[in-house]
Amino acid sequence: MFKSKLNKMVYGGDYYPEQWDKSIWEEDMRMFKKAGIDFLRINIFAWALNQRDEITYHFEWLDEVLDYVHGHGMKVCLGTSTGAHPAWMAKKYPDILRVEFDGSKRKFGGRHNSCPNSPTYRKYAAAIAGKLAARYKDHPALELWNISNEFGGACYCDLCEKQFRVWLKERYGTLENVNKAWNTTFWSHSFYDWDEIVAPNKLSEQWGERSTCFQGISLDYSRFNSDSILECYKLEYEAIKQEMPHAVITTNLMGAYKPLDYFKWGKYMDIISWDNYPSIDTPRSYTAMMHDLMRGLKDGKPWLLMEQTPSQQNWQAYNSLKRPGVMRLWSYQAVARGSDSVLFFQMRRSVGACEKFHGAVIEHVGHENTRVFREVSELGHELQKLGETTLDSLYKAKVGIVFDWENWWAVEYSSGPNFALKYVDEVHKYYKALYDQNIQADLIGIDTDLSKYDVVIAPVLYMVKEGYAQRIEEFVQKGGTFVTTFLSGIVNESDLVTLGGYPGELRKVLGIWAEEIDALAPEHTNQIVMKQRYGSLSGTYSCNLLYDLIHSEGADVIAEYGDDFYKGRPVVTVNSFGKGKAWYIASSPDDAFLNGFLKQVCAEKQIAPLLETAEGIEVTQREKDGKSFLFIMNHTKDEQSVELGGIQAIDLLSGEAVHQKMQLAPYGVAIIQKQ
Amino acid sequence: MFKSKLNKMVYGGDYYPEQWDKSIWEEDMRMFKKAGIDFLRINIFAWALNQRDEITYHFEWLDEVLDYVHGHGMKVCLGTSTGAHPAWMAKKYPDILRVEFDGSKRKFGGRHNSCPNSPTYRKYAAAIAGKLAARYKDHPALELWNISNEFGGACYCDLCEKQFRVWLKERYGTLENVNKAWNTTFWSHSFYDWDEIVAPNKLSEQWGERSTCFQGISLDYSRFNSDSILECYKLEYEAIKQEMPHAVITTNLMGAYKPLDYFKWGKYMDIISWDNYPSIDTPRSYTAMMHDLMRGLKDGKPWLLMEQTPSQQNWQAYNSLKRPGVMRLWSYQAVARGSDSVLFFQMRRSVGACEKFHGAVIEHVGHENTRVFREVSELGHELQKLGETTLDSLYKAKVGIVFDWENWWAVEYSSGPNFALKYVDEVHKYYKALYDQNIQADLIGIDTDLSKYDVVIAPVLYMVKEGYAQRIEEFVQKGGTFVTTFLSGIVNESDLVTLGGYPGELRKVLGIWAEEIDALAPEHTNQIVMKQRYGSLSGTYSCNLLYDLIHSEGADVIAEYGDDFYKGRPVVTVNSFGKGKAWYIASSPDDAFLNGFLKQVCAEKQIAPLLETAEGIEVTQREKDGKSFLFIMNHTKDEQSVELGGIQAIDLLSGEAVHQKMQLAPYGVAIIQKQ
Amino acid sequence: MFKSKLNKMVYGGDYYPEQWDKSIWEEDMRMFKKAGIDFLRINIFAWALNQRDEITYHFEWLDEVLDYVHGHGMKVCLGTSTGAHPAWMAKKYPDILRVEFDGSKRKFGGRHNSCPNSPTYRKYAAAIAGKLAARYKDHPALELWNISNEFGGACYCDLCEKQFRVWLKERYGTLENVNKAWNTTFWSHSFYDWDEIVAPNKLSEQWGERSTCFQGISLDYSRFNSDSILECYKLEYEAIKQEMPHAVITTNLMGAYKPLDYFKWGKYMDIISWDNYPSIDTPRSYTAMMHDLMRGLKDGKPWLLMEQTPSQQNWQAYNSLKRPGVMRLWSYQAVARGSDSVLFFQMRRSVGACEKFHGAVIEHVGHENTRVFREVSELGHELQKLGETTLDSLYKAKVGIVFDWENWWAVEYSSGPNFALKYVDEVHKYYKALYDQNIQADLIGIDTDLSKYDVVIAPVLYMVKEGYAQRIEEFVQKGGTFVTTFLSGIVNESDLVTLGGYPGELRKVLGIWAEEIDALAPEHTNQIVMKQRYGSLSGTYSCNLLYDLIHSEGADVIAEYGDDFYKGRPVVTVNSFGKGKAWYIASSPDDAFLNGFLKQVCAEKQIAPLLETAEGIEVTQREKDGKSFLFIMNHTKDEQSVELGGIQAIDLLSGEAVHQKMQLAPYGVAIIQKQ
Repeated sequence: MFKSKLNKMVYGGDYYPEQWDKSIWEEDMRMFKKAGIDFLRINIFAWALNQRDEITYHFEWLDEVLDYVHGHGMKVCLGTSTGAHPAWMAKKYPDILRVEFDGSKRKFGGRHNSCPNSPTYRKYAAAIAGKLAARYKDHPALELWNISNEFGGACYCDLCEKQFRVWLKERYGTLENVNKAWNTTFWSHSFYDWDEIVAPNKLSEQWGERSTCFQGISLDYSRFNSDSILECYKLEYEAIKQEMPHAVITTNLMGAYKPLDYFKWGKYMDIISWDNYPSIDTPRSYTAMMHDLMRGLKDGKPWLLMEQTPSQQNWQAYNSLKRPGVMRLWSYQAVARGSDSVLFFQMRRSVGACEKFHGAVIEHVGHENTRVFREVSELGHELQKLGETTLDSLYKAKVGIVFDWENWWAVEYSSGPNFALKYVDEVHKYYKALYDQNIQADLIGIDTDLSKYDVVIAPVLYMVKEGYAQRIEEFVQKGGTFVTTFLSGIVNESDLVTLGGYPGELRKVLGIWAEEIDALAPEHTNQIVMKQRYGSLSGTYSCNLLYDLIHSEGADVIAEYGDDFYKGRPVVTVNSFGKGKAWYIASSPDDAFLNGFLKQVCAEKQIAPLLETAEGIEVTQREKDGKSFLFIMNHTKDEQSVELGGIQAIDLLSGEAVHQKMQLAPYGVAIIQKQ
Repeated sequence: MFKSKLNKMVYGGDYYPEQWDKSIWEEDMRMFKKAGIDFLRINIFAWALNQRDEITYHFEWLDEVLDYVHGHGMKVCLGTSTGAHPAWMAKKYPDILRVEFDGSKRKFGGRHNSCPNSPTYRKYAAAIAGKLAARYKDHPALELWNISNEFGGACYCDLCEKQFRVWLKERYGTLENVNKAWNTTFWSHSFYDWDEIVAPNKLSEQWGERSTCFQGISLDYSRFNSDSILECYKLEYEAIKQEMPHAVITTNLMGAYKPLDYFKWGKYMDIISWDNYPSIDTPRSYTAMMHDLMRGLKDGKPWLLMEQTPSQQNWQAYNSLKRPGVMRLWSYQAVARGSDSVLFFQMRRSVGACEKFHGAVIEHVGHENTRVFREVSELGHELQKLGETTLDSLYKAKVGIVFDWENWWAVEYSSGPNFALKYVDEVHKYYKALYDQNIQADLIGIDTDLSKYDVVIAPVLYMVKEGYAQRIEEFVQKGGTFVTTFLSGIVNESDLVTLGGYPGELRKVLGIWAEEIDALAPEHTNQIVMKQRYGSLSGTYSCNLLYDLIHSEGADVIAEYGDDFYKGRPVVTVNSFGKGKAWYIASSPDDAFLNGFLKQVCAEKQIAPLLETAEGIEVTQREKDGKSFLFIMNHTKDEQSVELGGIQAIDLLSGEAVHQKMQLAPYGVAIIQKQ
Repeated sequence: MFKSKLNKMVYGGDYYPEQWDKSIWEEDMRMFKKAGIDFLRINIFAWALNQRDEITYHFEWLDEVLDYVHGHGMKVCLGTSTGAHPAWMAKKYPDILRVEFDGSKRKFGGRHNSCPNSPTYRKYAAAIAGKLAARYKDHPALELWNISNEFGGACYCDLCEKQFRVWLKERYGTLENVNKAWNTTFWSHSFYDWDEIVAPNKLSEQWGERSTCFQGISLDYSRFNSDSILECYKLEYEAIKQEMPHAVITTNLMGAYKPLDYFKWGKYMDIISWDNYPSIDTPRSYTAMMHDLMRGLKDGKPWLLMEQTPSQQNWQAYNSLKRPGVMRLWSYQAVARGSDSVLFFQMRRSVGACEKFHGAVIEHVGHENTRVFREVSELGHELQKLGETTLDSLYKAKVGIVFDWENWWAVEYSSGPNFALKYVDEVHKYYKALYDQNIQADLIGIDTDLSKYDVVIAPVLYMVKEGYAQRIEEFVQKGGTFVTTFLSGIVNESDLVTLGGYPGELRKVLGIWAEEIDALAPEHTNQIVMKQRYGSLSGTYSCNLLYDLIHSEGADVIAEYGDDFYKGRPVVTVNSFGKGKAWYIASSPDDAFLNGFLKQVCAEKQIAPLLETAEGIEVTQREKDGKSFLFIMNHTKDEQSVELGGIQAIDLLSGEAVHQKMQLAPYGVAIIQKQ
């Protein structure tokens, strides 16, 4: 996982000694050791410090830091420092500055501020990455590289516009193909010269982040922008590998971050890492889904929790404290879902600028007599005790939930049928139904091999990419269960409708035809009336948002609409196809329906809950070398009892044996290893 | 009405064969015939296809389309294709691109995107219109021309700014007059040179669409912008007439579309046409008012429903389907109010770009076995059966409701007294009271002859144009009943207050003086306390928004305020003036008041409801050659019974005789012709 | 106070004869005299009229106006007319035009539109002020100067940016100091050249008025902008004084107007004046606080109510009328809190442009038979009767409430902990508790001498400026009572955190340490549970917004939190320090707590309410030459009775003697002078 083989989960996080007087470093080290901290992420935002003009670099401070922390036994994740460019560079080379969605050219300021197609940015970012690698490749503290920091955003400058045309040429070959892909006979948009194409922003095709006149153009620009930024990542990646072929390289991702197609990024990362910043009211199932999505980017490999706050954020509207025990609980939630690290932003609260109110291991008071430090410290020692036990263990699931960034973009660029439709929310509805029952699922991309799953769920699979329908057919043919929903199978990769009846290429496997799609305000509901009992489902459930009016073409109708002019028409169908089944859910159901539905779907494939628990208890399992580790987490503020059903096992955290039943403290965690 | 005399209402709509492979055309024709479709609107957005550079035109495809559809017996409305300019033109001639309200210069993209004062746009738009006319003037399929498409928007570029100064010179002659009209001694705005005048947008006088420092400047710019766009229409109009003097020319309007003063436009249109896109919760009375407003633009002449969706829109937040029967019902609602066409956008759902989810006669599935096609088809055959019966018949009303675009602009540019005041809503309140009682009304402009009406209602007649007060006085003098409201008679055409006491020039005919105007949040209400019974009115009603504090100067006080420090002061007055009466409603009343009030006002002029019906039933009448056609429409989803009172008549749609009473199916329609 | 010694409060207001035909002036004078109006503010927006190009000035009209109004016995406040620049100047010298927060360059339009660092603006503004002074310095009507009008806003143009760097050089000396003050090692912001620094707006550091990446930069820009505009004021000020050393000069301020640090401005004003525009639902305590804040700018000296509307505004959403009696009541509220004038905007309603619906002494009707004119007239005669009685009397308070603009900016630029925190609202909560009990308070700046107060309250004293903590310590040491709240003592003047534990420099005097700060949505509440009775306080109160988790370090815990994981921890503490006490309120309490709390805090320092009255009665006191004037104001629409407790006094307004008890009419006012 790292350059060296470590014998425990790394523990620590962002450290900015350059913001502090050297006199304070010793105190830092003392407190880190006291807290069991052994891993520091450094040089994240020091570009201006490292490079003062085109040719002058100053790494002496960094030499000193690396040696110093190494001397204190710390391992290091080294940043390339390119997450924010220096002011001098912005002044001399304005090409580095982005143009906003509204067409305005930025000045120096903020971070994540470099145009991804700026020659200046690309040149100097790759250069400094290479120089850092040359200098530190043999440094004994160096375990991991972090390129830039939280890549993101978008640019609409002339350089990007020009490069967009090149990207299009590469993708489509001819202008004729472009015109066809975008259906440009619509609204007089035929392009006769590449240079007539402009970036789609507020000055051209779009009138909002989600509103565009030309879905195809906007969709391609989203792809282009994600690719452009990825290209920046790759340039630094290659510069490092050039000097240090065995370097382990990551960049910290941000969960369901819309502008970047992370499944594409995952391919170029040696290890996935991400920053987890739930707020006090983020559903715990949503956080879990983000962990699973990040794990999915590299097909289930263990990953790193690169950032979380030990106590509070600064950038939310209301930056509440993590309640006592919650930092530990949420740390283990990450580990339970595949993380092999617990890292914080940040080690010491900064004295000024916009993150000074962000929580830190060492608060502004500067000493260790704080609740936060005590909790960090307790967890640190617990992780030391845990050692390498769970390291490199895998999270295994028989259910795959499809998540596709390009589909997300396309669904939400769509003009109609329902502006209230949010792709991630629909995916989360299905995810949550499994989560609430302790059934493990993977979040998978379009390229993921389906054969290892028994159940594949693809909510709102609006865009069906080339070959994907066939792959689903094969999956079902061979016995798999496929579940999809309303508004699926509508378009191809260019957002061109698959003619001949919805759900297009999925029509055959689903055995239905969706004639019309009704859309009503979200507060309006219809009913799902079960025609027969299915698992625990019977009677009536609620649905809303979109309402496909479908005809069965062979599928069995399991439930009907209960209201409106399509009362009595199918709302839930299942089609037998080869050895498998394909489900269609024609509207957006309530939680009660989905819980019962997915429980039974899984049961039919012998996929059982890990444990049956009270609400608020989360259970996951990691496996290694024939051993399994059951993570049991109490997300409630009350003590909870969990039935284990008579096993011979030990709780790795308490060291106690467990059998029939165990008690979990408020926000408590157990890691059960069976004997 | 058209170039030829047709023997039935035209039926069909927007057809874009250029978006499709030619192989599909035959299938189109087959289905059109099956559905009774006989009229196609073509070449609407094909500018880029038609013209590839300054000198190269390609009309061959259009030749083929015209001949092809003609060969299948279709008639055609030919677009001039200038509703969206080609990308090459935007690239070579940036003067064609608009500058937004916020001052940003647009790039290529979207539609309705040409600067109306762009020399390039004017030159090439007129040129292509002329070329099309020269080429197709004798084409047997050609019945009607549609210039551009849904003209609209505004531009604030330098060319517009310069042209604005020329427009001002024409209107005012001297800068001194401009300074006076705008009251520029206020806030140091005196202009000493024409070039000091700038377009009023976010960079100068305005800080929102409705918020301006200088009402006079913004008002004149609204006039200028509407005139500028009209000038574009006229250039194309003249280019066509040059080649084809007997051409029948329209452009599709958009109801109460604020930026364009349609009463001015109507003068230059051979026939009015408009696009009707109600949402699922648009009040049916609002749709009716829009039909009546459009009919009013050419003094009651029959008009064309140019666009409506057969099923759903794509650009609303929630694009619900028209419930079964509703498409037919709403089509007849248009016919019932003067339309001689039923046309759809669009014939076939496009495969890509922003309107692909817009309903169409032929859905993406491509065949005729759809609910939508069946309903379209049924209506098509019904219209064939109806033939020429109702064609060219007139809608006659004795009540006129004044609607004035310039007044609308002025009321809503006003800084104070109440930002919640919306002109169209106030007009609609009065309209709805008549609509709910099946009393016919015309929406009339300031230039409309008043003598043909018995009752004239002018809600919020804030701006009284030169001579209009005298015309109202004459109307009342001769026996007419005039009704107006709070905030009337305040300003002249330059938004300069008529000094000497509100309601200014209307004070004499109304017999009142409004001393003060109180404004409170809309959720606050006061009471209208009737001093005596008036028709069915007695007791107490509610009012809100604005509260004129008036003194009678001869008018009778019919009702008083029931609350606040002006409790007991007049809120409803009526003045006898010559042989007529002039009413003043000093606040914005509830529906109950307005229903009773207008019923009695009409009754006193012997204007009776066409029929007394249950709620949800709409009744109108068209007349021709001594025959009258009573349209009875059921807007509810339940069967309804309508009392006819013992007539000898026939329902043209069912072919059945009707006498005392008839039943209307849910969303049902009848057209009763008396024997 | 004025150039001459006047023998009564001045009465009148804004007069714009230049907007009217001269024929109307005589009528104006007749009506002014009828209303007791003796003071006119003129030449406020006549720059374009006064100056037609760089060298041509036209003051003849102003000569005539001044002579004319003087001839009618009026005194004059002369504007310098620079509140809106002429159009010709904008056209020829675009440097005068501002650049907006979003980076867009303005064109001519509006008012308050000049860039404060524009050489053109500075040159011609100072020039015209000098010319006016040279011309009118000996004019007998001239009593007072008003520079510009309602200075405000901000500019982000290149000139401002350049000047910002100069301002920084002056403030910090070296770039190193700048880098340190802004903590620029954060996010790679180190500046190596002054020219790398850019103005912090939407194109650089900020993404909203309150949201910035660099608090230090934005804070300094706020200071710079306020200073830049003040510099414009001073240039005009000096130009006038050059010609007329004894001129009395003001500019009309706007209460708690965020962009300008009025405490700094007060130093350069000969007399404070301000414009009071409450809406119908502005809390009366808020208006009172604004009066007190304005009085505080010059340490309690009497000031001028420069503008108020006699009836309604035009720029609010709902411009309600002042109910009968309210104009008089609110006029006296100003006088009761130190004003020696009652002035209106405006004398006559303008005929056009954006303030034509703003109330005026003379309405559009033009005659005196209006409610508004009658009320103005009655007040005019009352003020004549009152004569010089209360003139120059002082408002004295033993409670000081700290209000600091820089603290305001810093609190609201802060990223975290709670975006819902609004500085002025928190100050107002404390102010209102005193106001509701008729306890007089001063609003004081950071420079104000604390020794004259017994109680000093500093809500959310987030920024503790150099030396201020020591001054508070001294104040408490000597026996004073100090009250502060959550989120105090956090940063220094550069928004750099005072390390070592919150509340930083205030920790010693308060005897506490705040370990953490919890932030929750405002609708969430916790409880203040009293540990012991304090004055009338016992039991439980509510609090919200922010929750400091404090440890006593010597302070007594008076109340504890009642809920959440910090239940039982201190929420209200008091520390004995020297002879005094220092209170800390760790959350934002409800009104009930604050009323009881501050009543007792005051009682302990022998500060008693002026009178105990029913809700809605406001009482203040002014003093002069050993006489005291008790202002008693009834803010309710009902008659109210007030207990006076057996005094020998006279009501100056009614002329009647009062003893035990008096009745106040709805919205009534009494001024009680003890015998």
